[in-house]
Order: sequence, then structure tokens, then C-alpha cells
Amino acid sequence: MSDLTDTTIFTLKELRAFSTAMFMHFGVPQEDAQLAAEVLDAADRRGIDSHGVARLYSYYEMLSSGRINPTPTLKVIRETLSTATIDGDNGLGLVVGPKSNRVAMEKAKHAGSGWVSVSNTNHYGIAGYYVLEALKYDLIGMSMTNSTKLVAPLWGAEKMLGTNPIAMAFPGLEEPPIVIDLATSAVAYGKVEMAHRAGLEVPDGWIIDEEGVSTTVPKQMMDGGALLPLGSDREHGGHKGYALSAMVDILCCVLSGANWGPFAPPFTLHLPQPSRSVGKGIGHFFGAWRIDGFIDPDEFKRQIDDWIRTFRATKPAAGTNGPLIPGDPEREMEKIRTVQGVPLLPAVISDLRRIADKIGVSFGDNRNGQ
Amino acid sequence: MSDLTDTTIFTLKELRAFSTAMFMHFGVPQEDAQLAAEVLDAADRRGIDSHGVARLYSYYEMLSSGRINPTPTLKVIRETLSTATIDGDNGLGLVVGPKSNRVAMEKAKHAGSGWVSVSNTNHYGIAGYYVLEALKYDLIGMSMTNSTKLVAPLWGAEKMLGTNPIAMAFPGLEEPPIVIDLATSAVAYGKVEMAHRAGLEVPDGWIIDEEGVSTTVPKQMMDGGALLPLGSDREHGGHKGYALSAMVDILCCVLSGANWGPFAPPFTLHLPQPSRSVGKGIGHFFGAWRIDGFIDPDEFKRQIDDWIRTFRATKPAAGTNGPLIPGDPEREMEKIRTVQGVPLLPAVISDLRRIADKIGVSFGDNRNGQ
Repeated sequence: MSDLTDTTIFTLKELRAFSTAMFMHFGVPQEDAQLAAEVLDAADRRGIDSHGVARLYSYYEMLSSGRINPTPTLKVIRETLSTATIDGDNGLGLVVGPKSNRVAMEKAKHAGSGWVSVSNTNHYGIAGYYVLEALKYDLIGMSMTNSTKLVAPLWGAEKMLGTNPIAMAFPGLEEPPIVIDLATSAVAYGKVEMAHRAGLEVPDGWIIDEEGVSTTVPKQMMDGGALLPLGSDREHGGHKGYALSAMVDILCCVLSGANWGPFAPPFTLHLPQPSRSVGKGIGHFFGAWRIDGFIDPDEFKRQIDDWIRTFRATKPAAGTNGPLIPGDPEREMEKIRTVQGVPLLPAVISDLRRIADKIGVSFGDNRNGQ
Repeated sequence: MSDLTDTTIFTLKELRAFSTAMFMHFGVPQEDAQLAAEVLDAADRRGIDSHGVARLYSYYEMLSSGRINPTPTLKVIRETLSTATIDGDNGLGLVVGPKSNRVAMEKAKHAGSGWVSVSNTNHYGIAGYYVLEALKYDLIGMSMTNSTKLVAPLWGAEKMLGTNPIAMAFPGLEEPPIVIDLATSAVAYGKVEMAHRAGLEVPDGWIIDEEGVSTTVPKQMMDGGALLPLGSDREHGGHKGYALSAMVDILCCVLSGANWGPFAPPFTLHLPQPSRSVGKGIGHFFGAWRIDGFIDPDEFKRQIDDWIRTFRATKPAAGTNGPLIPGDPEREMEKIRTVQGVPLLPAVISDLRRIADKIGVSFGDNRNGQ
């Protein structure tokens, strides 16, 4: 929806270096800063622009205001052979997330599967990053997080849940992996925001106004309304999207002791704090299954290849090129951006330059993006 | 949608006794027959009529034609501390399912979590039954199964996936549990079938015709069309419903060595066999996490109580009574049916009487339902 003629291209490498420098400026240890930058890079690389450097200013604000601990000590609160609860010590989600995911993967190595619920953490980037990590070790990963309230439960007239994503990935042998990474809302908030800026209406089934009535005017969602859950209304399964979002909320937060539902603290200084606190920070949930805990991994991957080819060969719906495989669009984008770099909008560049000025690091000074 | 004035009431007890007798008639051991009847009973009790005794005739057909093994020997093919693959030896899903679920729960007892992927099995009843079992042991259960193809992947024009349900349940302390049990299609096939019988059209977003074009005429879905995945079209997240269904398909079938996607064998004698076989039978996937592997169970349940009360207190959307908690409708139905019994439609009663005649057991002879 954005006008690409306005954008300026930056390489993944320079964006990653800049993110790393910013995190280090606030005292984040180098290794952690690189890890955090890697997670943002995964979003920029895969075309999920809302979760890459476009969000760096939020991290900047949260760090500079002291709302995030740059040097957290992660604590395992409770564990069994295949499960653990981790307190993220209010660190960057971009650091607490990858480290907690590693604990899940380590447990899987020994017990066949590993499951980690995390409290006292913050925005962790794209859910897909974590399950792509699991693929490196022949693990099937699962990744979930809660987030600031934006979505109404079906038949509700207010924001009560985050867009609460679910990710899982399956490796192929000759085919690239199937990568599932979906928000449990009907649509991403970014799309409503962009329509608002462009003065456009949105399709029916995306949003409700403050009375809980379906509307097509983005402003009415922003002024006390909400996003609808996946499925939109009762007739089309909105109760299912709500239930999936509830599942994510409970596994990430109730199980870990984080703030669930409407009590998730916002990841910005510009929104009011929730009316009460029911835990610590937000929550994530990570899982990993060893493929060879179930089946020979090569046999699994051969079947995944067959699955992918079979679904690609589905008779196409009129006017389409036929079904995609989950992860296709992001992989296509990654191919392009790895070579061509990442187009950034003027507003994003301006945010990054503000950060550059404040932390005394140069950013794209040889470009003509303002 | 059905006309309740046509129905005749039967008690849960007599339906369960009849199901047990039918299974035993085919040589299913008494304990297994009782277990199978218990799973059907859970559906009738909770108002999921499509999965209770209304389906008994399909089980009858499959058993009498020798398509199901009445005395299976379950085999653990591969295992780790927290995972296993089970070959169900082509037994009743209503027996293989509960027994495999017990293996997952038993593993959880020792390792903190347990995960079982099952091949060579058949229709397993309602997904919700298995997670309700887990609640009895302070476990959070997960249950999935694939099923006969009915659903198109987004942008496809043919049936490629089952309605592939996902279930999970969370216990409260004073509040009843949150019970999630949802098909990953926009709507259940039963609703399309009922509309067809009643000569009605269905809402846009439920089904497509054989060209993959959205239609409101049930017959067009039946004649080579398909159900749409949760989310319906691209604009409303149909790619997400498709991805969730793919996730279920892969965990249940690719991981276990069962028939995935369009190759799931149909659970009736009246549909053609799939074009090829890629594994054994259909597949299920069961999981269980020990709550105390993450948090003190009483603390968890207190928070679930708070979650439930908070979500019940959501500002209601205009014209509604506000959000339900997942599991509410089924629990309400269970209260009623436990006291009042189960209303059965004439077509169902007639099926059960046909079974009764053939196996030489009486069924509801003192009722006036035909």
C-alpha cells in the first residue's frame, strides 16, 4: 500500500550494524546486541517491515527511558526434563526470546521435546525467527507471544487481546521449509493504520467501532474500537480466532506469570499503562520437538517435499495461480532483499536519523532519503 | 437449524449402552467398546451431534465391512522421554485415540510433557474429549486429527484438507475450564449439508464451487467444490486457516506416517478411495503439559479464574450479551442433556434401528420415533 517511489534502499548489513550500535549504546552487551539485531534483520529480510528497523525507535524509547533492562539475568524459575519457566528480568524480548528458545531446543535434545514459558519480557520481533532457528537443528519449533491489546474477543466492544501470533516450521529435503507465522487477528493493525493515513476505508470484517459494530472506517477502530479476531464474525468463525488468541495468551502469560489479556504493558511510551498488573511484563512461549523423536528425519523431509509438491499442484481457483505454501512470500522477499537491500520509507529513515543523532553514530549520511 | 419438534429424546445412558453393545457385537473387547462409547457420549452430551451416535452407522459400516480392526494391538514405533509414534493397527479411532492420549499423559507425568503422533487409525470422535481427559490429571492437553478431504487451501479449487480440528483446555479453580475445540475450516460441513437439505443458501465465505469461486449454493460445493478455510478469503485471513490446517495435517500424518492431505481415506463406504496412499490410515496428534512443570497449579487456576471473569466483563458489542468463554455453549448443553437426555432426529433413530435389527439388540422400542 505504501508508495515505493518514496523509499531509499539500505543494505541488510548496514541496518544490522546500526541496530547493533544502538543496542550497545545503552549498555547491551555486544553479543546480546548482535542477537537483537539479528532478530530485527530477519523481519527486514523477510519483508515483515513492521517488525524490523521500522520499530527500532520504540526500542530506543524504551531503553532510553529505562523501561527495559539492558543487562538482564535470565532465571529458570521452575523446570522438568522437558519444560521450564523463565523470568526474563525485563530484558529486551529480542534477547530474552532467542535465549529462552535455546533452552527449549536444549531440552528437546535430551528429552525429545522442550517447552519454555517466559514472563517479564518485552516485544520479541517476528514469531517466525524462532522456528527458523529450530530448523537448524532438525527440530520442529513452535513460537508464540502476547502483545499490547488491539483485538476484541467475539461479541466484545473493546480491545482485550494482542494480535498474538503462532509460528511453526517444517523442513523439506529438496524443497524449502514450510514456515507458518500468523497473527490470530483477521488482519494486522499496520494495514488499518496505512489505510487511515491514505484516507481509505477497509473491508468489512476487519474492525469494529467502540460499540462493537463492524465498520470500514479506520478512525473508528482507533477511537476506542478494536481489530476483529481471525474469522471476523460468528458466522465466519470469529469465535475460533478468539479462542486461538486466548490459547496463545494463556500459554505465554498465565503459565509463566506474565500480564495476560488487556493487562499487557504497551511497547511504547505513548499509550497509557494498563489498569492493573496481573504479572510481570509480557510473555512468550517456545517449543521444540526432535523430528527423530517421531520418525526418521530424512523420511519426514521426503514426505514434506511430497506434501509441498502435491499442494502446489492443487487445481487453481479461477483468477489465481493456485495455492501458495506457507512461507513462500517471505522467502521470495528474502531472495530479493538479500541482493537488493531494504527499501525504507522517509518516516522510518527520519526515525533512524533521530536515533543516530542522539547516540552519536552516523546513519546513511550519503543517501538522499531525508 | 433442525426442527426439534421432530426429535425423540433418549437418555445418555441408553445411547451409551447401545453403542457399547454394537462395538462388542463386532468383537471389540468390552473395555474398548465402553471406551469407544464414552467418546461418542462426550459428543452427544456436549451437543456436538455430528460426532455422537449420529455417526454410529458409519462405524457400523466400517466394522461390518472389515475395514476396521476390532482387536488392534497398538505399537510404539519410536520414542524418547517425551515423544512417541504409535501405529494404531487400523483400530477404531475411538479406542486408538484414548489409548494414545494416555501414552502422552503418562510421558508428561515423567518428563513434564508428552507428545504422541499416531498413524494407522480412524475417526476419533470429538477433539475436545482428549483434552478434557487431560484436565483430570492437572495436565494441559492438546489434541488434533486429520480427516477426509473437504477444505480447499486458499486459492485452490478442490478439496485437499480435512476440517482438521485443534483442541486445548485450561482448568479454573472456582470457574469451569476453558475448553477450546475448533475446526480449522470457516464452518462445519454439517451446516452446509443442513442448508442443502432445507433448500437454503449459505453465507458468502463458507464454500466455493468447482472453479474455486465463492458461492452460496450448497450443491455447488458438493459437486466438486470445497469448504473454505477459517478466514475464508485472502482479505480476511483465509491463508491463516489454511496454514493452521496444514499444521494439523503435518503433525498428525507426516510425523506419524499416516495419509496426509487429500490422501486421507474416507470414513464411509460411499466415497471413492484416494488416488494414492502415502501412509497408513489417518493420523492424530496428542500432547500434554504438566501444569506444575511451569507454575504452581493452584496459582495457575486462580489466574484462569481471573482471566475468565475479566473476559466475561468485556464491554458487550451492541446487540449481544458480550463474549463467551470457549467451552461455554458445550457446558450449557451438557447441563441440559445430562438431565433431559439427547434429542435424536428421525433419520438418526432410523439408522440406529437398522443397526439394532442387524445385531439383534433392541433400541428404543418403547418410543414413537420411527
